[in-house]
Amino acid sequence: MSQTNILRKKLNSGNLVKVGGAFDAMSAKIVETHGFDAIWAGSFAISATRALPDASIMTMTEFLNVATSMVDACSIPVIADCDTGFGGPSNVSYTVKKYENAGVAAISIEDKVFPKQNSLLEGGTQVLLSEKEFVAKIIAAKEAKKNPNFTIIARTEALIANLGMNEAIKRAKAYEKAGADAILIHSKQNTPNEIFEFVDTWNGNIPIVIVPTSYPNVKLNDLKKHDISMVIYANQTLRASYTAMNQILEQIKNSESLEKINGQISSMEDIFKLQKMYDLKNEEEMIKTNLKKMGYVN
Amino acid sequence: MSQTNILRKKLNSGNLVKVGGAFDAMSAKIVETHGFDAIWAGSFAISATRALPDASIMTMTEFLNVATSMVDACSIPVIADCDTGFGGPSNVSYTVKKYENAGVAAISIEDKVFPKQNSLLEGGTQVLLSEKEFVAKIIAAKEAKKNPNFTIIARTEALIANLGMNEAIKRAKAYEKAGADAILIHSKQNTPNEIFEFVDTWNGNIPIVIVPTSYPNVKLNDLKKHDISMVIYANQTLRASYTAMNQILEQIKNSESLEKINGQISSMEDIFKLQKMYDLKNEEEMIKTNLKKMGYVN
Amino acid sequence: MSQTNILRKKLNSGNLVKVGGAFDAMSAKIVETHGFDAIWAGSFAISATRALPDASIMTMTEFLNVATSMVDACSIPVIADCDTGFGGPSNVSYTVKKYENAGVAAISIEDKVFPKQNSLLEGGTQVLLSEKEFVAKIIAAKEAKKNPNFTIIARTEALIANLGMNEAIKRAKAYEKAGADAILIHSKQNTPNEIFEFVDTWNGNIPIVIVPTSYPNVKLNDLKKHDISMVIYANQTLRASYTAMNQILEQIKNSESLEKINGQISSMEDIFKLQKMYDLKNEEEMIKTNLKKMGYVN
Amino acid sequence: MSQTNILRKKLNSGNLVKVGGAFDAMSAKIVETHGFDAIWAGSFAISATRALPDASIMTMTEFLNVATSMVDACSIPVIADCDTGFGGPSNVSYTVKKYENAGVAAISIEDKVFPKQNSLLEGGTQVLLSEKEFVAKIIAAKEAKKNPNFTIIARTEALIANLGMNEAIKRAKAYEKAGADAILIHSKQNTPNEIFEFVDTWNGNIPIVIVPTSYPNVKLNDLKKHDISMVIYANQTLRASYTAMNQILEQIKNSESLEKINGQISSMEDIFKLQKMYDLKNEEEMIKTNLKKMGYVN
Repeated sequence: MSQTNILRKKLNSGNLVKVGGAFDAMSAKIVETHGFDAIWAGSFAISATRALPDASIMTMTEFLNVATSMVDACSIPVIADCDTGFGGPSNVSYTVKKYENAGVAAISIEDKVFPKQNSLLEGGTQVLLSEKEFVAKIIAAKEAKKNPNFTIIARTEALIANLGMNEAIKRAKAYEKAGADAILIHSKQNTPNEIFEFVDTWNGNIPIVIVPTSYPNVKLNDLKKHDISMVIYANQTLRASYTAMNQILEQIKNSESLEKINGQISSMEDIFKLQKMYDLKNEEEMIKTNLKKMGYVN
Repeated sequence: MSQTNILRKKLNSGNLVKVGGAFDAMSAKIVETHGFDAIWAGSFAISATRALPDASIMTMTEFLNVATSMVDACSIPVIADCDTGFGGPSNVSYTVKKYENAGVAAISIEDKVFPKQNSLLEGGTQVLLSEKEFVAKIIAAKEAKKNPNFTIIARTEALIANLGMNEAIKRAKAYEKAGADAILIHSKQNTPNEIFEFVDTWNGNIPIVIVPTSYPNVKLNDLKKHDISMVIYANQTLRASYTAMNQILEQIKNSESLEKINGQISSMEDIFKLQKMYDLKNEEEMIKTNLKKMGYVN
Repeated sequence: MSQTNILRKKLNSGNLVKVGGAFDAMSAKIVETHGFDAIWAGSFAISATRALPDASIMTMTEFLNVATSMVDACSIPVIADCDTGFGGPSNVSYTVKKYENAGVAAISIEDKVFPKQNSLLEGGTQVLLSEKEFVAKIIAAKEAKKNPNFTIIARTEALIANLGMNEAIKRAKAYEKAGADAILIHSKQNTPNEIFEFVDTWNGNIPIVIVPTSYPNVKLNDLKKHDISMVIYANQTLRASYTAMNQILEQIKNSESLEKINGQISSMEDIFKLQKMYDLKNEEEMIKTNLKKMGYVN
Repeated sequence: MSQTNILRKKLNSGNLVKVGGAFDAMSAKIVETHGFDAIWAGSFAISATRALPDASIMTMTEFLNVATSMVDACSIPVIADCDTGFGGPSNVSYTVKKYENAGVAAISIEDKVFPKQNSLLEGGTQVLLSEKEFVAKIIAAKEAKKNPNFTIIARTEALIANLGMNEAIKRAKAYEKAGADAILIHSKQNTPNEIFEFVDTWNGNIPIVIVPTSYPNVKLNDLKKHDISMVIYANQTLRASYTAMNQILEQIKNSESLEKINGQISSMEDIFKLQKMYDLKNEEEMIKTNLKKMGYVN
């Protein structure tokens, strides 16, 4: 079964789908190793690895390259954070074609104006597109996909933009009607209260997705109780990585040798395994065996 | 002063130049923040982030993109690990032109055959190019550079390939004569003994560079005593990052919430700063001020 | 002198600057060979070579790659058509940094909303950004450039959008005041009348640039009389190429052999020269000479 | 049916498969329009458009990008010229995976050493890999493909390297045995004699492919008589394009206006059609219709 079909099946299973955030193929591979259901290729984290603002500065080409390398490296589905869809409806249409061709299982597009700013930035500018204009993007996305199981997640930023619960619900319903396959409801509050209010009010038929970056204390059990279908741990890998690199470089800078450092970091061996150096050795063996059979080597 | 000239000046200063390994612009930026003299864009680490073997699978285009994003993000010099130079002398020539244009300060090329395998891989294949063929690459590199301070580091793998100290010295001398600006002597022993033997025997005029991955216990003071000019901590950031992501994902997988995780990872704020989200806000202010002056806003 | 400084000098020389349109490094090289002053890396032509609409579908990354390969191949300045600047002011700022670093001499940005449609498309949608918003982009562009001679061409589509001469003049003046280095005035009429009216009314201090795609009969002499500084032949190479390929494939499809075809097309030799196959041979000779001197070959 | 399966079916049909050479999506689209069976994404032509030598200077990443844009634009199969496979067996393996994922129908790899030089270059260096080493690449390619119909064309340069007919036949047989799906036999003679001798001697089971660049007078009828399965017109589109651009720029340079030029080149309309500007308009209509149904517009 393709990664695209796997994701859809999981979304329909009634179980909470757990998604780990990644920013390159290595972090994606580590997410897979730990048994998550899918990988979130988040634009905040990917922009951060480029030391560029999360503000539509990186291009679709660059995000697609990252997502493609994750698909190449992993067996679990990849969900690509496509921000505002990189422009208008025709950009969304092109985005869907390219991402679906690349083997990505789902994309998320959000109802902010292009270029956007990160939703959790203190003092950030949060302007929403009109409902009509975002509905146009969803229509374009739906029309562009080939596999009906390719999942289009419509993310509403109505709560982020302080437009109120009614607006959030109204938009989510419109997005479902326009063809979205799931709704991502985002919040910047430090409790899950408004998220729970949203899902308890919402009575649509498509799954609800959340990203608890600002309300990390929310319990899995409560997510299940409120019928949330997918939880995305969007950027914890990046932030763990950032912290670890800072600590290790601080130590290196202040040490006479790497003696104490080596105990705290992975072995070279671990990395060799992750990057499939040993597959390469196996391939060499396979070729050697064949060359022997054909009489080229003894 | 350009990053290229800064690196050359440091190499000639008589002080030990300390270089931190990075694999994307974020890790490069963290290296810079901790006061290292330069950034090592290592092919092992970069390949690992793509979950691809360190075996000449990634292309020059891809490595150059990573190095360019480091140059864009940082003020300290970037040294690019260019493996075997991506082919023959004409590939080396093209590589030098592209990297120098991108603002990279130095490249390292090594005397293994293309495609290569990682030097520290247990059971890895380590075949050296003939001295003559590698000298041809150095000639091509030297001829291709425009700024004489663009630094060509010739890395000999003679010790890695078990060809003995005499061969290592002979090659290093030949590479200096051909136009190399520095020699990187690599070792897979778990003590610095053969490295010290090399530098004590060597009496060339160009600086010696080392990468103490396999002999982490070597002391800075001993490096200085043996007149080593540059030490590269090639992959500790990557390995710290790998370990941290494994730990955090393990915890997330087994927790009811992110409550305990948040204390172990950086804040969103830290990442916003790194990716210059606030420069964006400053730019908005600058534009607003100008628009006011011009009468467009009150 | 850098390509950037050369272009600025030519623009200030009082002579009409003639620019040939190109869409890849080969067409750029041919433009150079024929003695044009500069190369226009046009987004219409580049999109066409990708068989993609001229409607902000291709990304900055892709356009920049094409422009960079032109800079690498040519000695004359490259002027990059950057459409609307790929988003808002922060995208413009990033665009300027990337293009200037790549060695491009000038960029053109236009006052349509993103995503745009080609100006000459029958029934195309032509919506202009407010003057204030485009002024904001020019301010961002000006602030982002390092070399003051890097030329920012502000292109107004006021006439294309049927907003009248007064609006065109008003906008051009505002763009000059905001920091534009030249004004590109575009027209879809099949005579140069409105262009001449514009330049005769305009009394700013920065040069005027035109693109006579829709009014091909305009005379060079008349351009000079009306103090136009630069003429861009934006897409004739592409259209000649398209026609020639159609003709040759039609013939091949209907012929028993290539006998008659070969007389109509360039020799392999011509292409070898363009792509510098012989520089490669010279480089090989240079290396051989050096290897001889060093005693590696007899 | 996928493009990959279509190509295989045509190769097995007994009819001569006619392939037109292209170097970007536009030229590929024109090849398709003229009824050719498939598109040849030739490395000589693609390198030429970058003004780079046909000598393994461009990377796999860059060639793959071009081939992908052809696949995106066209419905007929794309055959990618992959030179020597970009390195050793592990590079070939990776190449097959990436090209097959991109929707390319076939790749051609040749038995020269990496980096290679163009086969028809006067005085070019033509060194062949040992049969064993090239067989290793074919084994790697065969093992890497997922769809058995993905076609691996093994190209022998034995005649180009003046190694004689026996060597050419011997290698072709070895390559078939190793798993090649077709043999491309290349020649630099200006008559098809040695090609005919080859195919008349050869009695393998896989199809024979030729590229009559140096013997353009060969008749289609003779190709059929000699049981040749596929003929590739590799670079005539490029050479026609080169000639046309030279002529048009020469005229522009020496004319007072574009008056006479416009009759010789395609209309803007032709290009708009090729790049699907009108599909964009149709998409806008489709969205509008849907927005009406949903009550957003009247």
